Amino acid sequence: MPMTPEQQAEIDALRSNPQPTLRAVAEGMEKHLYTAYDVLDHGFIRVIDYMGDDAAICQAARVSYGKGTKSVQNDEGLIRYLMRHWHSTPFEMCEIKLHVKLPVFVARQWIRHRTANVNEYSARYSILDREFYIPQAEQLAAQSVINNQGRGEALTGEEAARVLEYLKGDAARCYDHYEEMISQDDQQGLARELARMNLPANIYTQWYWKVDLHNLFHFLRLRADAHAQYEIRVYAEEICKVVADWVPAAYGAFEDYRMGGATLSSKAIDCVRRMLKGEEVTQETSGMSKGEWREFEGIIG
Amino acid sequence: MPMTPEQQAEIDALRSNPQPTLRAVAEGMEKHLYTAYDVLDHGFIRVIDYMGDDAAICQAARVSYGKGTKSVQNDEGLIRYLMRHWHSTPFEMCEIKLHVKLPVFVARQWIRHRTANVNEYSARYSILDREFYIPQAEQLAAQSVINNQGRGEALTGEEAARVLEYLKGDAARCYDHYEEMISQDDQQGLARELARMNLPANIYTQWYWKVDLHNLFHFLRLRADAHAQYEIRVYAEEICKVVADWVPAAYGAFEDYRMGGATLSSKAIDCVRRMLKGEEVTQETSGMSKGEWREFEGIIG
Amino acid sequence: MPMTPEQQAEIDALRSNPQPTLRAVAEGMEKHLYTAYDVLDHGFIRVIDYMGDDAAICQAARVSYGKGTKSVQNDEGLIRYLMRHWHSTPFEMCEIKLHVKLPVFVARQWIRHRTANVNEYSARYSILDREFYIPQAEQLAAQSVINNQGRGEALTGEEAARVLEYLKGDAARCYDHYEEMISQDDQQGLARELARMNLPANIYTQWYWKVDLHNLFHFLRLRADAHAQYEIRVYAEEICKVVADWVPAAYGAFEDYRMGGATLSSKAIDCVRRMLKGEEVTQETSGMSKGEWREFEGIIG
Amino acid sequence: MPMTPEQQAEIDALRSNPQPTLRAVAEGMEKHLYTAYDVLDHGFIRVIDYMGDDAAICQAARVSYGKGTKSVQNDEGLIRYLMRHWHSTPFEMCEIKLHVKLPVFVARQWIRHRTANVNEYSARYSILDREFYIPQAEQLAAQSVINNQGRGEALTGEEAARVLEYLKGDAARCYDHYEEMISQDDQQGLARELARMNLPANIYTQWYWKVDLHNLFHFLRLRADAHAQYEIRVYAEEICKVVADWVPAAYGAFEDYRMGGATLSSKAIDCVRRMLKGEEVTQETSGMSKGEWREFEGIIG
Repeated sequence: MPMTPEQQAEIDALRSNPQPTLRAVAEGMEKHLYTAYDVLDHGFIRVIDYMGDDAAICQAARVSYGKGTKSVQNDEGLIRYLMRHWHSTPFEMCEIKLHVKLPVFVARQWIRHRTANVNEYSARYSILDREFYIPQAEQLAAQSVINNQGRGEALTGEEAARVLEYLKGDAARCYDHYEEMISQDDQQGLARELARMNLPANIYTQWYWKVDLHNLFHFLRLRADAHAQYEIRVYAEEICKVVADWVPAAYGAFEDYRMGGATLSSKAIDCVRRMLKGEEVTQETSGMSKGEWREFEGIIG
Repeated sequence: MPMTPEQQAEIDALRSNPQPTLRAVAEGMEKHLYTAYDVLDHGFIRVIDYMGDDAAICQAARVSYGKGTKSVQNDEGLIRYLMRHWHSTPFEMCEIKLHVKLPVFVARQWIRHRTANVNEYSARYSILDREFYIPQAEQLAAQSVINNQGRGEALTGEEAARVLEYLKGDAARCYDHYEEMISQDDQQGLARELARMNLPANIYTQWYWKVDLHNLFHFLRLRADAHAQYEIRVYAEEICKVVADWVPAAYGAFEDYRMGGATLSSKAIDCVRRMLKGEEVTQETSGMSKGEWREFEGIIG
Repeated sequence: MPMTPEQQAEIDALRSNPQPTLRAVAEGMEKHLYTAYDVLDHGFIRVIDYMGDDAAICQAARVSYGKGTKSVQNDEGLIRYLMRHWHSTPFEMCEIKLHVKLPVFVARQWIRHRTANVNEYSARYSILDREFYIPQAEQLAAQSVINNQGRGEALTGEEAARVLEYLKGDAARCYDHYEEMISQDDQQGLARELARMNLPANIYTQWYWKVDLHNLFHFLRLRADAHAQYEIRVYAEEICKVVADWVPAAYGAFEDYRMGGATLSSKAIDCVRRMLKGEEVTQETSGMSKGEWREFEGIIG
Repeated sequence: MPMTPEQQAEIDALRSNPQPTLRAVAEGMEKHLYTAYDVLDHGFIRVIDYMGDDAAICQAARVSYGKGTKSVQNDEGLIRYLMRHWHSTPFEMCEIKLHVKLPVFVARQWIRHRTANVNEYSARYSILDREFYIPQAEQLAAQSVINNQGRGEALTGEEAARVLEYLKGDAARCYDHYEEMISQDDQQGLARELARMNLPANIYTQWYWKVDLHNLFHFLRLRADAHAQYEIRVYAEEICKVVADWVPAAYGAFEDYRMGGATLSSKAIDCVRRMLKGEEVTQETSGMSKGEWREFEGIIG
């Protein structure tokens, strides 16, 4: 449970005080505002603010004076057309601001998405909490034997137990020493900007993260993908849920064309054409490498 | 008067329909929403949407759970501190979306500010209106004799009259021919994407422009500056007015530290120090070039 | 012929003076340096500088100490893998700087690609040359009757003649007046920053444009595409040629996966699977709109 | 000594093989190429590649056909003018690529500079080395008592000894467990992407970092500043040295206008004017807060 009673009270206060606005309001998003959705053992995502809705995408695409909506059906068709033809700028007209609590090693992947605005809790200035990500048993995965950058089966027995013991013990000891080093009881106390270097990468940090819908979709496509590391994927999946309520038409198009879609190379298209004409195509006759062919079979499979 | 009755009716409809929201609401901005503020002879700016307020800047800077406001005074002090020390990320947490109608040669300067989102009215797809910027008499300025990139006194008499005649006549003729070329009456009609090439740079275009507050301040510092071309400066000045109502504390800090501030080189700082100690410093003893010295005198003037 | 003898002499001087460097050298690119390749009637592209080669992409992907090359074959396989799996950052490690001369209406499309560095010839400061793009007869296309944003057949006969007359006549007259307005013979002379507004969008401008290889590929995919406007496509095609010589492995992967590739939606993938199993799928049973189905047929064609 | 003999041999090989190029060559930079300059206990910076020189800045500013150099003096004057008037785009025409080895907590600050290209060594894919930053005695600083985000005096005696013991001991133990967890001797071996979470933030990582000169100057202004954390400042200072050799005129202007310069608020300018007229101005009569006044005194000091 990541919220203290004080934090929960602040959130409740914010949720109890609707105010009139003339801006576009997305009903589906209002219900999510401020609420923390748990991710991993101590993390969360919370929607802090948003700008725009499905109609705003169309309004911008049409550079119109009014609401831009001719009808919900027209809007959906236009949104699907924009997504299909890689028109990115209308989707940039929607914006979301999230408050995220996440382990440092996840934050290090996340921040690689550069077209976003970030304010991170400062460990130069403030003291981090004693909260570390400890994987659940089913996530204690072995190194994949077929993919250098992936996971295999979950560890079991003594090996799993030993890993958990290491992760828990090292986190606790490192944090104890962090606290001792910065303590100003009977000593000067090490600078916080130095003491933080003793903390392992599973400690939690938090930030405000603001991004436009186009760049968010790019983030979600990569991070909600089955090949993404589990610990960032669960954040992406939680975000997908609120986005589906915020901009249902845009999210639907994203699911169809991006998440569920696939890009075929010119060689792959050629193979599909030959196969549809009845030819028996094999990896050898495809012109593709073994890796490409395996991925191709996964798509048309 | 840039609005048609239909457009004005759409705007009135939007302004008459407040809805409840749980998001941060900036009272000062609500009153501006959708309304078109005239700029130049046919242009305008309109606020279409916004995200955040002064408190949101502080909330992000503190990565806090609640509203982030301890008191209005505290917030203002923090905002001034952030501005003074070039902390840009908290200002990026506010966002504004504008609808702007502007001459093409102004749009070409404006678009050079790359960190923004834009949807422009498409002249490949649609037909541009017959609206051209024709300067008022007092803006028909001569080339500056001291600055290759500036204006001198306003032209007068026959010369001014001739310039106006050229601008009006060429715009009208080019537009007549544009219309004739795309007409499909008794002919095929030239492709719009080609016909537009006949239109001079004072024709009006329009776009949706979305930008965060940090990058907006950067835009305003350069474009509301006395050295900016008049025709873009008047847009920047109109935007300044709505920003002052939207985020009064941030705008106040921006005025003090950026618009009204000045950067001194190490040589200039050295001169100030010597002058404050009573030394008579001249351009020759300053270490500065003539141009730098002239600008320095303008600052300490 | 866009070069004056003086300009050509400057280019020849640069090409005649090789110097030793320890940096990665791309033989295929050295032969293109500085040379102007004609595009349209007065435009060109020239490579001014470049950084990196195919090996540099691999070196960065491996974060290695030496050249990063194990073998040319290994490098090509890695580059294809990176392209296939949307690993964009290694391609960002190569950079190219071009000098481009292009009509203003083309420049206005081009500049929408924001992740690039640009220095444009300033018409506030300098005087533009009397050079306008006048389409060749076969490019004087009619508005498409099936696509609002496209071209149909070339105009013919009187209509074509009238269009050419308008384009040439209006350009000439606007430029004559531009010259007269800025002239300082017996008059003050209008400020250049104002006079330029009288020039139509087919006047040529020029700029230095610097971009990394990842963003260049994005530009080329959109602008060398058959749906791009002809007048920007010919620039993209000319750039494709030098890129093919600069980074042959990366360009090959780009051609296969991006230019020649296609993205299928989840609905389209489902249709392919059903068709490969022998099912007769029609637009009605596909779940796709008519537009989507038409595009799908074009791919599997 | 961060280089292994094999790595040094690779570097020597690269340095021994000059090749002819027609590109702009910066003599001052060639001598630095590939060489590793030590930073902290195990870190370094190495220049891998560069594009452009002082002349290239001027060439782009003038959008010229040839070398752009009229004379070295003219070039320097132009560069100082561009820097003084915040013309950023010509400086973006130079680019540098660095290979950097640095502790993770430094990398986390560094990556916040978003306008750059990065390829980091992947701990999902590869195994990190046993190398941790352990501060030297004089850098084991206490928390500042006047600035929440700063350092005070160095710790001494038992307290310093205890801190070092903690840092060294925890790093060693965490790394031992990291190795044990990923080991595949007689066990499956934990996935690398999970095991890395046990490593503290003083472990070293490395990356290729590519940035244009304008954004590099922005980085250096903030990170070579006296208020930056020591552990990133030493990297910035080392980079300053190579930049001074690469683009001496641009670096000189940067030193004068940015590093050695200061921005005065409108209130501060008003105070300077009053003081120069002989008025005795105090904090109370300045209109500034105590913090601002203290900083102001530091400038005019």
